[in-house]
Amino acid sequence: MSDFPKFVEIHEEGPREGFQIEKKVYPIEERIELIDILSDSGLKRIQVGSFVSPKYVPQMADTGELFQRIKRVDGVKYTALWLNDKGFRKALTAHNVDIDPRLLFYPSDTFSRQNNNASSLEMREKQRDWIRLYKAEGLTVDAAYVMTAFGCNFEGDIPQERVLDDFRFLLNLCEEEDIPVPILIIADTMGWGNPEAAKRMIGALRDMAPGARIGMHIHDTRGMGLAIMYAAMSMGVDMFESSIAGLGGCPFAGHGHARAAGNISTEDAVFMCQELGIETGIDLDTLIAAALKTEAIIGAPLMGRVMHSGGLKSYRQGK
Amino acid sequence: MSDFPKFVEIHEEGPREGFQIEKKVYPIEERIELIDILSDSGLKRIQVGSFVSPKYVPQMADTGELFQRIKRVDGVKYTALWLNDKGFRKALTAHNVDIDPRLLFYPSDTFSRQNNNASSLEMREKQRDWIRLYKAEGLTVDAAYVMTAFGCNFEGDIPQERVLDDFRFLLNLCEEEDIPVPILIIADTMGWGNPEAAKRMIGALRDMAPGARIGMHIHDTRGMGLAIMYAAMSMGVDMFESSIAGLGGCPFAGHGHARAAGNISTEDAVFMCQELGIETGIDLDTLIAAALKTEAIIGAPLMGRVMHSGGLKSYRQGK
Repeated sequence: MSDFPKFVEIHEEGPREGFQIEKKVYPIEERIELIDILSDSGLKRIQVGSFVSPKYVPQMADTGELFQRIKRVDGVKYTALWLNDKGFRKALTAHNVDIDPRLLFYPSDTFSRQNNNASSLEMREKQRDWIRLYKAEGLTVDAAYVMTAFGCNFEGDIPQERVLDDFRFLLNLCEEEDIPVPILIIADTMGWGNPEAAKRMIGALRDMAPGARIGMHIHDTRGMGLAIMYAAMSMGVDMFESSIAGLGGCPFAGHGHARAAGNISTEDAVFMCQELGIETGIDLDTLIAAALKTEAIIGAPLMGRVMHSGGLKSYRQGK
Repeated sequence: MSDFPKFVEIHEEGPREGFQIEKKVYPIEERIELIDILSDSGLKRIQVGSFVSPKYVPQMADTGELFQRIKRVDGVKYTALWLNDKGFRKALTAHNVDIDPRLLFYPSDTFSRQNNNASSLEMREKQRDWIRLYKAEGLTVDAAYVMTAFGCNFEGDIPQERVLDDFRFLLNLCEEEDIPVPILIIADTMGWGNPEAAKRMIGALRDMAPGARIGMHIHDTRGMGLAIMYAAMSMGVDMFESSIAGLGGCPFAGHGHARAAGNISTEDAVFMCQELGIETGIDLDTLIAAALKTEAIIGAPLMGRVMHSGGLKSYRQGK
């Protein structure tokens, strides 16, 4: 009936996803301190920032400096986002960036143009260039994302077939370019998903690419984030991207209310795994400290739940 | 594999659960206005307040007046909570209360004493008196709750067997007293549940009482509320108690942080049902208006998500 993984890998996106959607630029010292707490939690991958145009995303202008000043913990990968060649070059030459080569697919043409200034089909074709660029740098593609996999604020519901079509294109591309199939990431960029839609998508993707690893990037825009994660785990999905305190959201995703657009909260996700008996290697108390630090930085109540209610350990030990 | 119901009944608990945990007493006019919006949403059952000691729960002292002043909509039941004979008598004699006779079981002895000033076993035995009291008034027992069904802040994890034992006691009681088996409500009073624990409980309860209807009262204390509801619906559970804007929590449940203790949010629950193709008969936009009204009354950001992000209708229609 269900096929829960024994271990789930959680990638922290808060420092990048979280602060870019807020209008303010938060002090770099505060963000360094936050990343340093996250580094101590047992998380193995933290997306520190993005190398994108400071004109459009001024909050990320100091990403290079951030990478220089954080305390690196052995075994943790500190990654960055880039959207074009220029950003990639910046990431390559910046200090201490763990490059995680990725491919991006956009079944929504409008969002593709908003986020990349290129059509869906142009973006598809560009992925071949990216593969070659990564190859030329001696890098292997780590993950391939299909964005707005369930729906898009600009285009409405995204039919499953369009998403599968992008993944199919990717699989062919991997064959043509003779590279291993990367992790296939179903990204619910704008929070249109639900647990049953996720299960249908995962099932169809498994049929198409039986050996591939599947991951999810989930936004909790409408409260179903952990239900989607639970449903995905019940089908064996073992990699999720989340955001400390539930921060986040893409600044170009057309959300009316930024605060509502956040990712699933890292600490809530880890707590759920613990309660389901799934290992994550992550310490909940450290995450809660990081979430409270995040709330202090933002200066407004954030959407994470366990950060406010606490886990159950103290209750269990206290009897 | 799964057995989703076609229709799910949602009972609104916000006006009672929501305002009793807050330290303030909110103006009755505001609460009347909120209940009147809820009445127009299509909800068929709204718990308006409780007839409990104004000494311990001063926020509910005006419940009688509230019942007199709300606009009653045909087909909607306006219910109240009581915990003892005195409260029940008040409810019976108050104006316009739709009495929904219920039974309460407490597998946690400590919580039973906190909430009722009686031990678990005393509370069990008292349920026979309640059945007879209801009978004497010509009333049929509507629902039987087993509280803190997954865990208790005072006693830690509650073993499934203790919960089933209470339900078994109830089933025998129904036979002895010759009354139909009421809805069996698994109440996660303090937010210790998770979707798998819920499924195991529902499965075991089904085995024990194959014909009985099962409902759930879920708190979203740690972010898994909708995941639990989703899991329960996948096993055919078709009755849930929830709270507008995610307000709520029992004042005697020993939560450190009141705001974190809320029920699942009614509007988020209804939205999830809509997205899963499950009917509720409830209008989401009206619920969102009610949730925003609730936030205005409380004067602080509340935990509901869809109330902030909006549903998907306008995006879908806008294309």
